[in-house]
Amino acid sequence: MDMAFLGELLTNVADRGRALIGMERFLGKGARPIDRLCEDLLSGKGEASGMALAQAVLEAWQRLDKPGRLAFFTVLMERFGPDAERLDAAVERYRETGDAAAVAALHLASEPRRQELFRRLNLAPEGTHVLVQMREALFEAMEAEPALKAVDADFRHLFGSWFNRGFLVLRRIDWRTPANVLEKIIRYEAVHEIQGWDDLRRRLEPPDRRCFAFFHPQLVDEPLIFVEVALTTAIPRSIGELLEPEREALPAQQATTAVFYSISNCQEGLRGISFGNFLIKQVAEDLKRELPGLDTFVTLSPLPGFARWLAAVAADPGALNLSNEERAELARPAGETISLEEAARAARDKLLGQMAAQYLLRARSASGRVVDPVARFHLGNGARLERINVGGNLSARGLRESHGVMVNYRYDLGDIETNHEAFATRNTVVASSQVRKLLRPVAN
Amino acid sequence: MDMAFLGELLTNVADRGRALIGMERFLGKGARPIDRLCEDLLSGKGEASGMALAQAVLEAWQRLDKPGRLAFFTVLMERFGPDAERLDAAVERYRETGDAAAVAALHLASEPRRQELFRRLNLAPEGTHVLVQMREALFEAMEAEPALKAVDADFRHLFGSWFNRGFLVLRRIDWRTPANVLEKIIRYEAVHEIQGWDDLRRRLEPPDRRCFAFFHPQLVDEPLIFVEVALTTAIPRSIGELLEPEREALPAQQATTAVFYSISNCQEGLRGISFGNFLIKQVAEDLKRELPGLDTFVTLSPLPGFARWLAAVAADPGALNLSNEERAELARPAGETISLEEAARAARDKLLGQMAAQYLLRARSASGRVVDPVARFHLGNGARLERINVGGNLSARGLRESHGVMVNYRYDLGDIETNHEAFATRNTVVASSQVRKLLRPVAN
Amino acid sequence: MDMAFLGELLTNVADRGRALIGMERFLGKGARPIDRLCEDLLSGKGEASGMALAQAVLEAWQRLDKPGRLAFFTVLMERFGPDAERLDAAVERYRETGDAAAVAALHLASEPRRQELFRRLNLAPEGTHVLVQMREALFEAMEAEPALKAVDADFRHLFGSWFNRGFLVLRRIDWRTPANVLEKIIRYEAVHEIQGWDDLRRRLEPPDRRCFAFFHPQLVDEPLIFVEVALTTAIPRSIGELLEPEREALPAQQATTAVFYSISNCQEGLRGISFGNFLIKQVAEDLKRELPGLDTFVTLSPLPGFARWLAAVAADPGALNLSNEERAELARPAGETISLEEAARAARDKLLGQMAAQYLLRARSASGRVVDPVARFHLGNGARLERINVGGNLSARGLRESHGVMVNYRYDLGDIETNHEAFATRNTVVASSQVRKLLRPVAN
Amino acid sequence: MDMAFLGELLTNVADRGRALIGMERFLGKGARPIDRLCEDLLSGKGEASGMALAQAVLEAWQRLDKPGRLAFFTVLMERFGPDAERLDAAVERYRETGDAAAVAALHLASEPRRQELFRRLNLAPEGTHVLVQMREALFEAMEAEPALKAVDADFRHLFGSWFNRGFLVLRRIDWRTPANVLEKIIRYEAVHEIQGWDDLRRRLEPPDRRCFAFFHPQLVDEPLIFVEVALTTAIPRSIGELLEPEREALPAQQATTAVFYSISNCQEGLRGISFGNFLIKQVAEDLKRELPGLDTFVTLSPLPGFARWLAAVAADPGALNLSNEERAELARPAGETISLEEAARAARDKLLGQMAAQYLLRARSASGRVVDPVARFHLGNGARLERINVGGNLSARGLRESHGVMVNYRYDLGDIETNHEAFATRNTVVASSQVRKLLRPVAN
Repeated sequence: MDMAFLGELLTNVADRGRALIGMERFLGKGARPIDRLCEDLLSGKGEASGMALAQAVLEAWQRLDKPGRLAFFTVLMERFGPDAERLDAAVERYRETGDAAAVAALHLASEPRRQELFRRLNLAPEGTHVLVQMREALFEAMEAEPALKAVDADFRHLFGSWFNRGFLVLRRIDWRTPANVLEKIIRYEAVHEIQGWDDLRRRLEPPDRRCFAFFHPQLVDEPLIFVEVALTTAIPRSIGELLEPEREALPAQQATTAVFYSISNCQEGLRGISFGNFLIKQVAEDLKRELPGLDTFVTLSPLPGFARWLAAVAADPGALNLSNEERAELARPAGETISLEEAARAARDKLLGQMAAQYLLRARSASGRVVDPVARFHLGNGARLERINVGGNLSARGLRESHGVMVNYRYDLGDIETNHEAFATRNTVVASSQVRKLLRPVAN
Repeated sequence: MDMAFLGELLTNVADRGRALIGMERFLGKGARPIDRLCEDLLSGKGEASGMALAQAVLEAWQRLDKPGRLAFFTVLMERFGPDAERLDAAVERYRETGDAAAVAALHLASEPRRQELFRRLNLAPEGTHVLVQMREALFEAMEAEPALKAVDADFRHLFGSWFNRGFLVLRRIDWRTPANVLEKIIRYEAVHEIQGWDDLRRRLEPPDRRCFAFFHPQLVDEPLIFVEVALTTAIPRSIGELLEPEREALPAQQATTAVFYSISNCQEGLRGISFGNFLIKQVAEDLKRELPGLDTFVTLSPLPGFARWLAAVAADPGALNLSNEERAELARPAGETISLEEAARAARDKLLGQMAAQYLLRARSASGRVVDPVARFHLGNGARLERINVGGNLSARGLRESHGVMVNYRYDLGDIETNHEAFATRNTVVASSQVRKLLRPVAN
Repeated sequence: MDMAFLGELLTNVADRGRALIGMERFLGKGARPIDRLCEDLLSGKGEASGMALAQAVLEAWQRLDKPGRLAFFTVLMERFGPDAERLDAAVERYRETGDAAAVAALHLASEPRRQELFRRLNLAPEGTHVLVQMREALFEAMEAEPALKAVDADFRHLFGSWFNRGFLVLRRIDWRTPANVLEKIIRYEAVHEIQGWDDLRRRLEPPDRRCFAFFHPQLVDEPLIFVEVALTTAIPRSIGELLEPEREALPAQQATTAVFYSISNCQEGLRGISFGNFLIKQVAEDLKRELPGLDTFVTLSPLPGFARWLAAVAADPGALNLSNEERAELARPAGETISLEEAARAARDKLLGQMAAQYLLRARSASGRVVDPVARFHLGNGARLERINVGGNLSARGLRESHGVMVNYRYDLGDIETNHEAFATRNTVVASSQVRKLLRPVAN
Repeated sequence: MDMAFLGELLTNVADRGRALIGMERFLGKGARPIDRLCEDLLSGKGEASGMALAQAVLEAWQRLDKPGRLAFFTVLMERFGPDAERLDAAVERYRETGDAAAVAALHLASEPRRQELFRRLNLAPEGTHVLVQMREALFEAMEAEPALKAVDADFRHLFGSWFNRGFLVLRRIDWRTPANVLEKIIRYEAVHEIQGWDDLRRRLEPPDRRCFAFFHPQLVDEPLIFVEVALTTAIPRSIGELLEPEREALPAQQATTAVFYSISNCQEGLRGISFGNFLIKQVAEDLKRELPGLDTFVTLSPLPGFARWLAAVAADPGALNLSNEERAELARPAGETISLEEAARAARDKLLGQMAAQYLLRARSASGRVVDPVARFHLGNGARLERINVGGNLSARGLRESHGVMVNYRYDLGDIETNHEAFATRNTVVASSQVRKLLRPVAN
């Protein structure tokens, strides 16, 4: 393996934060406005002094306030699109000849100039990092000015190419990981909040816990997405049993089941660039290699849209053949039901399970999509719906969003492609028989 | 510094050469032809099983023979261009509205499908590497089928984005560098051939020698471009004094001058993606930081087109006010002149110097460009023409290509931008007075 | 630099925690008692199967309870000393011949067998680590059985050789350091307690803070000793100004003074093996190299024995020409004086300063040594006593131990040797004139 | 794994070659002779300025010529032994009391002062390296002055402790290893000479070749010992089949047999410090882990003493019941026999095989040891004698030293301890039945 050489190789990256010699020549002149700097960077000057100019632009940008950034993005939209004359000529030529050369010319002529601008801004030290921040700021600006989504299309195109899975690096996160990375894991965990360093350690250090993240070589301290994994001997029914602080750890060699219980994206500026798909499959493969005893790969996932959907059902007298009593029961706030007696609870739980199955298997949005976003993610990756766990998450948030219900999606490496196709082409939710059985018979 | 974390981070890259679990599902089916695999990869299947499909395509491609590759590229050209219907619709819409959204849609619709194909092929382990090889093979195919340059345009676009300077890593090459990298330095040195490991060591190990290369994190064992540097106390006049095996090494701290005496590109598949520009400036900055005593940064460069140009001049009776004797002298093969007597040699040398100045300062191609490619490179980078060294390279090749003349181009970090602009915008060759004085007075 | 190769080289160390093939051959037999295993390890068996036997001993040792460990150490003392017969013969021969060979033989014969035992135990994975723990346990056992110090002499001899400065590695500790190392910094800080991760970050991350530790290649996760440094523009008078959470950080380039404000040993099992001496000098050199603007290297140190000494002085009517009022003042608990009015406080502060100077410059123990252990450490390293800071540490501990007084010791790299000699050979405390002036005139 | 942190940790080692600030204070004074510097280093001065003093001594030593070094070693012998008075007192006290404290004091008093001197010399940058060179020079001096072996005893004692297996690192050597390490592999290969870089590559790069070396963290560029391994499907009979340049490589996964065909020590200065024992076993374990298909671990070894022994046998009329014809045959120079006809060759080969069995199983030196040093090494490690291969090495050296015979020793991890004990305690050579059968019946 050549990792040692690579290690040294990469030390230079870290170094690039240094002052560029001659930098002051650009900034010192003062007052060259940022749009002028951008034009320079795209001109021949950019060829001679690209790094320094790019750094000047990015530093100027970082000093802009919110209105300044909105103005900057507007300039990008209005003045850094394609060259109109050239584009018209290319369109004309395409209509005349329609040949391959004309197509190629048309593609080039229709490329907004800001794409090349972004590529040149990447010359600056930390350029990639600042460009990702820039897109994050763009999202904010887009709320005020939706037309800016034309600018975002270029960011998205570029980041899709730069953050191609082929350039990402999967890395285990553990208690030996640098603290500056770990604090980002604490900060970005979006599913089951991490309560400080002791809680973090409980998720990383025990032998039956794993955490993996994707990194990009240019963003060394910044995980892009990470997944937390518990190794168990059975598919878990609740998040509580996984996160219990006093539980006894399992020797990894004895585990049969890997549970992906939390997946979090870290970079708002990379929204829409999909990594999670690759992450789960890669981690599953790596774990299988390390621990051949593993034969089951599942998630323990929330149903973030369930409570909302259920409220609509409960409010609709004709829905799903529900009796009035059932609708009343479903309309009760989740918190209120904690103190139910056993029989009542069992009845309620049964009903919730039926509704969850209905929600996941049958519910469709106006555009015909499966309603639940987490379900769409895992089913789209080729997982199947394995089990519904009523009472899986009794935290305030779990009750509020999903009446405490959680779901296991199962990744069976041999079925992923078939499952994916069923879902992608026929909109079919592949589910285990135990889930399908929960469906109430449809009225006549 | 975070290099340690990075080091570990990158170990996973090296690992990616492993067999992908489930790979055989694709290859085992046998006989799915490569174009079918490519279509699958672009389809929803590619989303579910991208890595395995990409690997299947690349392995199938590597097994193709030369006609097979030509056929493959032809398929890429003919069937993986843009979707014609969609493109026509986008053109239509653009002509109707002309708004930003229409422009964006036009750009997307005109993007050949092979661009996304290439991005997905990059999912495979070693994908980047094989794609670079693929472009190399494409060059060969283009000789038979020039229309394939439409395919090359897409490679070039993608590689320009992926091999952006912001993603490259500068690394010193020395005698502690892994042997598998060093052997590539031996193989790729294009200017002054390296005669095996002992010669290599003479260029790397002495305290007054340096070598630097750019690497891409995905191509760890493959330098992209490298430069060899000699540290001296004066601007050198000949390559012989630099490469003399028995010379005494200079303590680096005593050096005042860094001489870039050889720059070599390593990856034919990255032809046209420019790195040299950045390399020289970055190395100059790094050396200045390490050795503050350095105040002069120059090249010692060949004039690869000089002999050819001179032959044309010598054959043209009216050219440059040359006398018949002079033209006869210039028509003599370089090798023949070795044994000239001193006075004759001095006269010849003077004449050669004048001609070289003429060649570099005044000669222009039909399209108006400076004739010499090496001159264009350095002048375009913002260097100035510092000195002409007659007798600088008396090797067979040096005599044959340039009558033994070599040139120093000087990189003065403070003047780079000005020099570049003079050259880029006014086609002016910035030269020292000593070079300009060599010019023969123009006839009347 | 060869660090990359080294990095890979060392990966194997980390690996050595793996199960040894064939291990069970030894442990499986069960019940071979630990002393028998030790004898085997020293015998020819140890040559054939040293690693496995060493691991068996160390694992058995780790399972021992406290009485078991006492028994084990007693066995080491009684049965693993030198071979008595061989020693007597060597003594006899020495008395007869007295030649170099006899001396060498005597040295060998007098070496306790446990020294070789310890060396062979080091063959086990993690051997060094467990041996350090073993010595820590020995300290506890020595409280019950002082004669065990004969065993400690062998540990100390061996560790002195193994943890020779030449084998240690100085490493900066910062916010990018692995969490498992950082938590040890929190745990081991012995001077100014670190209040959790946020406090730690305040000591590591700001640009005017540094922390360095010595490591041994065999104890990668275990700092041996570390020093915390503040970069300032003046010699500080109080720990409060350094640790103030809200203070504004200084750009490192502007610093003139490096303050070593805390030095902590981490490994109880390495007690008496001195590293602090080298650490301070090495860090001073490294900082000077990184930040040439630094010209002052000082500590901000406690006087841990001051309050005790002062209590004795205050209780002794004839001591130091003190008036009764002064003695009464000095007898007051430090905490009580917080609310003094300004004039009274000034008088008290002046008196405390005089007493501190007396304590450091003149006070000697029964054996004639300087009383304060921290003073002995820094003066023995060649520092000089620079300034006494009354009110330098108003924490409960600071008041209790030293009435709030702190001291700056100054490391002037040019005077270290002279200062050291004055202290080591003449017991002279080198001090600045401002400190010497604080001394009260001696009675008559 | 914590290797990343370690990697960074170790970068500081590489750095230690830097100039020590203040160094010139010692060397500048000029003319302080080396023995005086040594005394200073052992004195209190050494505590204050140990690193600088140690460096001064080592630099002075490196400038000494051969007579100077002899003089230096003589001083070490005569003036840096134990303190005579203190030793006599310790002997006296031991004879009086004989208690543990007296023993400990005796051991300390009998330790030559040069041991502490060596430990302090190790404070210098590169100290360990120079000390190893120093011992190498000592061997040369010992030829002139055998009494210096008293000095060597101290080197050996110290190196035995410092180069303890627990501190060594096993590392694979391959074609990605830094060139400066590889050139040492070429230089130090002692068994089957490596003919330059191409030959080296043939031994490192094919998938069925491995090379491993031990390193010490302080000697990063210096392998201590290395072993070359061939992966095969059968126990090889000749070195020729292994080193054949045109042979086809075997996929490593198909190998059943690992052949250790060359073991070379690299550091003459570490002579007598044994690593080979650990190296073979460790490599065997690591290979078994990587390639579970391996079930046979053997050497292909020379018999360096065979020809000499055989000559003596051939010259002794009564030896081994040999007929005169046989003795005549054995007396023939090995080279002469190349052209024998088949039957004669077969007869000769049979005789050589019998003699080799006799040599290995029965021949004993005057002191009763097995004669062949390579046999002693492997048998002492617990290997068994597996097969005798007549014609295994037909190189000039192989014919000259051992009439072309080679031997396989087999390492069966389950039998190592038993084999070792048989050899170590009963002097029994454990051999396969096929070897034992070669023995000629002893004349009653």
